[in-house]
Amino acid sequence: MDEKKTLHMTPDDFRRYGRAVVDWIADYYERVESLPVLSPVKPGQIRALLPPEPPLQGEPFEKILEDMNRVVLPGITHWQSPNFFAFFPANASGPSILGDLLSSGLGVQGMLWSTSPACTEVETHVLDWTADMMGLPGKFKSTGSGGGVIQDSASSASLCALLAGRERATKFMSNEKGCDGRLVAYASTQTHSSVEKAVKIAGLGRQNLRLVDVDEKFALRPNLLREQIQKDRQSGLVPCYVCATIGTTSSNAIDPLPEIGKVCRQEGIWLHVDGAMLGTAAVCPEYRYLQEGIEYADSYCFNPHKWMFTNFDCDCFFVAERAALIHTLSILPEYLRNQATESGAVIDYRDWHIPLGRRFRSLKLWLVIRHYGVEGLRYLVRRHVEWAQKFARWVQEDKRFELAVPPPMNLVCFRHVGGDEVNQKIMDRLNLSGKVYLTHTKLKDRLTLRLCVGQTHTEERHVIQAWRLIQETADGVSKS
Amino acid sequence: MDEKKTLHMTPDDFRRYGRAVVDWIADYYERVESLPVLSPVKPGQIRALLPPEPPLQGEPFEKILEDMNRVVLPGITHWQSPNFFAFFPANASGPSILGDLLSSGLGVQGMLWSTSPACTEVETHVLDWTADMMGLPGKFKSTGSGGGVIQDSASSASLCALLAGRERATKFMSNEKGCDGRLVAYASTQTHSSVEKAVKIAGLGRQNLRLVDVDEKFALRPNLLREQIQKDRQSGLVPCYVCATIGTTSSNAIDPLPEIGKVCRQEGIWLHVDGAMLGTAAVCPEYRYLQEGIEYADSYCFNPHKWMFTNFDCDCFFVAERAALIHTLSILPEYLRNQATESGAVIDYRDWHIPLGRRFRSLKLWLVIRHYGVEGLRYLVRRHVEWAQKFARWVQEDKRFELAVPPPMNLVCFRHVGGDEVNQKIMDRLNLSGKVYLTHTKLKDRLTLRLCVGQTHTEERHVIQAWRLIQETADGVSKS
Repeated sequence: MDEKKTLHMTPDDFRRYGRAVVDWIADYYERVESLPVLSPVKPGQIRALLPPEPPLQGEPFEKILEDMNRVVLPGITHWQSPNFFAFFPANASGPSILGDLLSSGLGVQGMLWSTSPACTEVETHVLDWTADMMGLPGKFKSTGSGGGVIQDSASSASLCALLAGRERATKFMSNEKGCDGRLVAYASTQTHSSVEKAVKIAGLGRQNLRLVDVDEKFALRPNLLREQIQKDRQSGLVPCYVCATIGTTSSNAIDPLPEIGKVCRQEGIWLHVDGAMLGTAAVCPEYRYLQEGIEYADSYCFNPHKWMFTNFDCDCFFVAERAALIHTLSILPEYLRNQATESGAVIDYRDWHIPLGRRFRSLKLWLVIRHYGVEGLRYLVRRHVEWAQKFARWVQEDKRFELAVPPPMNLVCFRHVGGDEVNQKIMDRLNLSGKVYLTHTKLKDRLTLRLCVGQTHTEERHVIQAWRLIQETADGVSKS
Repeated sequence: MDEKKTLHMTPDDFRRYGRAVVDWIADYYERVESLPVLSPVKPGQIRALLPPEPPLQGEPFEKILEDMNRVVLPGITHWQSPNFFAFFPANASGPSILGDLLSSGLGVQGMLWSTSPACTEVETHVLDWTADMMGLPGKFKSTGSGGGVIQDSASSASLCALLAGRERATKFMSNEKGCDGRLVAYASTQTHSSVEKAVKIAGLGRQNLRLVDVDEKFALRPNLLREQIQKDRQSGLVPCYVCATIGTTSSNAIDPLPEIGKVCRQEGIWLHVDGAMLGTAAVCPEYRYLQEGIEYADSYCFNPHKWMFTNFDCDCFFVAERAALIHTLSILPEYLRNQATESGAVIDYRDWHIPLGRRFRSLKLWLVIRHYGVEGLRYLVRRHVEWAQKFARWVQEDKRFELAVPPPMNLVCFRHVGGDEVNQKIMDRLNLSGKVYLTHTKLKDRLTLRLCVGQTHTEERHVIQAWRLIQETADGVSKS
């Protein structure tokens, strides 16, 4: 093949540059611990390094790879640093990166079964595996009435669940005639903001999202939920969706699924459960009490791209009745018709989420499960929880600090007793130091620091170092 | 580090297995041409090769990679085969695969500027580059009132545009109070099914989507659009969204943007333009007539993951007024508050699409533009168009075949004159042969074959061979 003519990277060039990129990534992981976790750049600083015009002629790959160091790295906040304790983790791992690379290389579209049967069947199978290894009810498996699908994020999963709930409550007439302002959704004051976003997107309106108050552990109070639903029904409104959370973003609170589930079942309301980060804990049998009551859920999601060492994007979304979801989202134009679809013997995942196109995302999850094995995943999760609990004890033993709430698992919410301003200063100084990155929330209107132990490469020594830095920084702030 | 203790792939293992995967992909591209394009497996055949339970203990990477050949490859429909002429292409390329690998390796979340400034700034900059190299109006650039963002798909882009249009038409009260059944959206009978899906998701209802009739070239008839809008206003309805298409999925029809744009401007309706596949043509100045009238659009999208050699997912979505989009989709919980956001000096892309989380998708597009250069992209696009036009001439010169519509660019819609049954047989035999893959549509109720020339690795000889196979197969069908 005439290289000049095709301009494409030849397989041999791909081998050479592919190795260079693999080495770049391996080098990156060897030194990521030494890089400032939170990028110190100012707005516009990265853009200023880029030429104003795209190149007319192609550039050598070597030059492009150099720019990864010169341009990109200074502007990276290192989510893969073992000193990353902010937000929730967004983990990568060797097998996951390589699984994703295989997906990029194959470059298939899995919108229909027929457009790449393996893309659909491996995903269905690996999601059934996942349901089993997390101890989820059989109804969430494809061999039952339901099944799993990989979504890009818990935000999109929540939206799809809301849409299915909306349609079930209106006998699929909202799809047909549009919303009428009477549909109501429920969550707690601690539920992730994506539910508010979903309620707006789905045409319910923010006013029709009821944020139910929480108890002292920041968990939804089911009696208030029941009262609110009854009140809304009496006003002629149509309750259609409840979102409960296993591990809220602020504080890892666990909503009481058995009580919420009973309310939803009695009222015929779609119950979606969001276990985005904490759901991964259920890989360990001893932590499955966290999802007690999950059998009441109509849908459930958790994100292996958070705590299960699988690159973004990988949200596992399970439904108990796949027919309801498919009926909600299906479209079938002529140009997508095919024999396999019409036989009814296959899954066409295009009807399970918002986009039509989809890549082979299950490869990375398949590789993660196979590389670590279920026991390996359990071991890693247990260690993260153990270290977070140790950290919580250190907080309790230091009179300058207090826990904002007992940490159920791997997220510790704590604060300096000196008040919001002191805590803000401690956090800002810690993050500016580049040695550690943590973020905050507000609990009962008080600024609260969050330390989430879940990064792939975090070892006990990183948690120990983080606590030492926090103590030292608190000393510095007190003196200044 | 104690390997047994961590279970993670060490950097050295990552180098070794990374090379193996790079080689696997290079080998794949060296032989993809010889593989049956459409996977011949039966439903359930791939799943049957997978063990019923996930492994308890981790498996060696070598064994996993073997399963790519044993389990996965037989179930792949080869979108990266040069003999793939079906649907629209979903291209990969060397630089894109490696850009995506770098993104997986860095594993950053770009939901906020502060969570990785480079992820946001490279994306903003590359989208500005893209606007320039496609000859788009300056209002779509971040340096103007608008800007670009990478979405997963044109489906999601259409949905976001619809939401912004819905909110602008109701002064942001649909977000607040919900839809009221009076909002109306417009497209043509040929518009992609994702618009129907979006209308249902956004709570407008399918009944409130007007599918305006088309002319003999399958382009929307703007006078009918104007009449329908007026009729709807007279009925007390609220027109909020028009979706026009540059290159419809069935036949690559081009809706008349200047006329549609004037209607939308007069009526104050959000005009979204979908150039998912064909939009890439505008990289060549001589093809920019296709997007004449784009200055009327409030939003525009095209998919480098179709024809611009960039792996899925990469839809470039441009808005003229970023404030309208951001106002529509923004949420700001405490745990995402940060100084950079509050300074107003940065873009937080979480407010530009449905999901919260987002990976560093611009790396792959950046690498594609830099590897090929703008001139390189132009060269490749021109050749695809040239070959498609040659193919169309061959069809015209063969009395057994006819063009269903003059092909504007790189998609040829044609059929055997023998009727639907003959065409179905020709297509089924061709696809079963594994030597070529093409799909169909219906135009004026007649089954029509589609041949889209746009796969990265397609050369003229593949188009010649496809035509020869079509002719031979037609002979065979006529005789049987």
